[in-house]
Amino acid sequence: MNRHIITAFFLASSTPALSQQSTASLAPPVLVDPRVAALRDNALENDHYAWDVVEGLTTEVGQRLAATDAEARAREWGVAKLKAMGFSNVHIEPFTMPVWTRGAESAEIISPFPQKLALAALGYSGSTGPAGVTGEIVYFDSVDALRAASDSAVKGKIVFIDHHMMPAQDGSGYGQFGAPRRQGPTIASKKGALAIVIRSIGTDHHRNPHTGVQYFTDGATPIPAGALTVPDSEQLIRILKRGKPVTMHLTLVSQRSEGAQSGNVIAEVPGRDPSLPPVLVGGHLDSWDLGTGAIDDAAGLAIATAAAKRIMDAGRPLRTIRIVWFGSEELGLFGGLDYQKRHGAEPHYAAAESDFGAGRIWKVNSKLGKAREAEGRMLQAALAPLGIVPGSLDDADGSDIEPLLNAGVPGVGLSQDGTYYFDVHHTPDDTLDKIDPVQLRQNVAAWTAVLATLSGGIEPEPKRPRRR
Amino acid sequence: MNRHIITAFFLASSTPALSQQSTASLAPPVLVDPRVAALRDNALENDHYAWDVVEGLTTEVGQRLAATDAEARAREWGVAKLKAMGFSNVHIEPFTMPVWTRGAESAEIISPFPQKLALAALGYSGSTGPAGVTGEIVYFDSVDALRAASDSAVKGKIVFIDHHMMPAQDGSGYGQFGAPRRQGPTIASKKGALAIVIRSIGTDHHRNPHTGVQYFTDGATPIPAGALTVPDSEQLIRILKRGKPVTMHLTLVSQRSEGAQSGNVIAEVPGRDPSLPPVLVGGHLDSWDLGTGAIDDAAGLAIATAAAKRIMDAGRPLRTIRIVWFGSEELGLFGGLDYQKRHGAEPHYAAAESDFGAGRIWKVNSKLGKAREAEGRMLQAALAPLGIVPGSLDDADGSDIEPLLNAGVPGVGLSQDGTYYFDVHHTPDDTLDKIDPVQLRQNVAAWTAVLATLSGGIEPEPKRPRRR
Repeated sequence: MNRHIITAFFLASSTPALSQQSTASLAPPVLVDPRVAALRDNALENDHYAWDVVEGLTTEVGQRLAATDAEARAREWGVAKLKAMGFSNVHIEPFTMPVWTRGAESAEIISPFPQKLALAALGYSGSTGPAGVTGEIVYFDSVDALRAASDSAVKGKIVFIDHHMMPAQDGSGYGQFGAPRRQGPTIASKKGALAIVIRSIGTDHHRNPHTGVQYFTDGATPIPAGALTVPDSEQLIRILKRGKPVTMHLTLVSQRSEGAQSGNVIAEVPGRDPSLPPVLVGGHLDSWDLGTGAIDDAAGLAIATAAAKRIMDAGRPLRTIRIVWFGSEELGLFGGLDYQKRHGAEPHYAAAESDFGAGRIWKVNSKLGKAREAEGRMLQAALAPLGIVPGSLDDADGSDIEPLLNAGVPGVGLSQDGTYYFDVHHTPDDTLDKIDPVQLRQNVAAWTAVLATLSGGIEPEPKRPRRR
Repeated sequence: MNRHIITAFFLASSTPALSQQSTASLAPPVLVDPRVAALRDNALENDHYAWDVVEGLTTEVGQRLAATDAEARAREWGVAKLKAMGFSNVHIEPFTMPVWTRGAESAEIISPFPQKLALAALGYSGSTGPAGVTGEIVYFDSVDALRAASDSAVKGKIVFIDHHMMPAQDGSGYGQFGAPRRQGPTIASKKGALAIVIRSIGTDHHRNPHTGVQYFTDGATPIPAGALTVPDSEQLIRILKRGKPVTMHLTLVSQRSEGAQSGNVIAEVPGRDPSLPPVLVGGHLDSWDLGTGAIDDAAGLAIATAAAKRIMDAGRPLRTIRIVWFGSEELGLFGGLDYQKRHGAEPHYAAAESDFGAGRIWKVNSKLGKAREAEGRMLQAALAPLGIVPGSLDDADGSDIEPLLNAGVPGVGLSQDGTYYFDVHHTPDDTLDKIDPVQLRQNVAAWTAVLATLSGGIEPEPKRPRRR
């Protein structure tokens, strides 16, 4: 999940579910098509497609950092898998972008208490070179504290920014408390810092660092930028509290080069009426390099793909369902932007993305437009038996589809439980064992109901075009 | 905790708590000295000494691998701390041993699905050298399966041993399922294996490897020996299940040299009657190098030390309490054996050790001898208000004190809840944040009651020797 999603989370939370329920109780009753309910319930009980995809991709490819050979292998794997599942029009849409890869990484307190600390570089970090750098730590408890500091307090030092992120079901802490990662490196660089380390933007207590993207903006020179694990950050704070100057030796080797290739993988369930705008569903194919990208976002594309496959198994929908496995979400929405550039002018019936892990869905939002609010209520009714509460009828989000949504494409957003998401997000711990197959099936059931509703009536057999 | 403790666990579990309770109900009621109860309850409510020690040692020293400079700093830290706390006769008893240290470590699947796996070398592993080695993986689901294999099935390959350890409150899974680590490397070496990797002897699902000691016995040549994390082991198993040959490139650089210095740190609460044998309590000062050794075993020595300090604060016990912070438990009980060599011939009133984390104590065992079973029952009665069940009256355990116990020294064993212990044991995750201060105080309360009972009546003020 990218920072862009966060704004939408905040907007969503300003429309309490309760008020939606009150409104709904005044509206006429909404009856769910029994065929939609049957598809939903069958997925809840029996789906194995999502597990097959997430298990296969994470096992046979593993990590797939944007624009690397690993991501290219993932695209080839995806094409083969989507074809084997019977989808149509399976192809890659390539694009270029800067590639960034990490090398040796270590941090060591030199004084007063010599010891190693565990960390990882942030995306597009500058490189210390193999010899590393040594500097005194200067502590800030927030980005604002760093922003307020004089240049002389920071110049030549290694900035350390702390934060206070706690778990939240809707993941909203990532917006507030992700600032050290997103803004810290640029501010530190502009004040002349030697390097920056942040407390990982995470809610766990394991020695696994949370990486993530940042950009040096406003003309800031790239400096080495890393994330200490949460336990190591707490250790550093305890050491700093002893009141003696703390010196760190930091090695963050990385490389950046321009013009590397990434791409989106696209497949379709052809609709009975090809003249109608398609329903777009997706997730992102790339992952961070530390884990195998199981919850971020093999699970998401597996859920979307499984739901589309279940519709295809049931027959042929009225509208085409277009599956997009976006490339390079993590390094900056390159896939979403490329899709928008190529297809943004085409009409889309709706767009939706699964990219917040594999926890159960607890809320449905939609933004289908005033004229289609009944369709939004139909989605609410169809998902209620899965324990999903109605959210907004005027909001939807999704990282890669944000350019489309911003351009006015109707959207649906299914909110997954993010209570534990930031324990694992962007860490080496993002591996298959973190996925609960039961919750994964609940996701597939919800998305199947959404696609069955949005794609129009499913006919058991493909209809031949009528001759006039 | 060392493998030696495991046998004792099995013995302990053969005497169910229930039968002890039945016996106790036939015995005359045991009334707890109100002064012992008051000391216990005060510790439960107020102790801060244990936290001070465990926080200080893990912060100001961090990891302290046996016979390294870090362990030497830990001894100096210990001497200063124990003196500052007011203990008497604070000194170091040095000994020499082989030192083993790790260097670069990595594992990478070369084919069929290229990806990195996370691992750490086991203690006294052979070294691959910096260039590493490449070989085909051969899978075994147990040590016995490896033992039964032909040499030709293993020769020149990288052995991988799986196991099926699950959490257990008494930690007994470590005995059964620790065999891949303890026996695997020697067996693999004798069959001509290139190297060995095992599934970490742990019960968690984090990308943190569990190291631990092993010895090459029976004339086996040291080979590189490492532990993959549990998620990486499961990944390797999924890859192997695809049925294609799996090739791994393995780098495990390490160094061993003889004659390095370690030592025990000793301190005392002098008893009123110095002619009486002392009560020995302790934990071990060394730790594995991956974490900061918070639960293994800074917590243990902190608990023992805090309890002794609380007795000292209350006055002067009849018998001397001797605190031992054993050196080099992890690499092979060198500290316990040195203590036995130096002091084994001296009488001890009792010996006890805390070395199973910082979880709450749930059972008390003792082996004080037939003549002192009433004292064992007194311990049971004194600990019951802490939720501690009576265990055996004919069993006690402890890794460093095992040589003493085997030689007939009376012993007490307080069993800590180990349900989560092997999630963290010997991993980078063994850090201060894993300790619950409330459970830590329950430990101190129990040990305070044990020491108050064993050390004899505490007088408020030191008595001057009577002149005749």
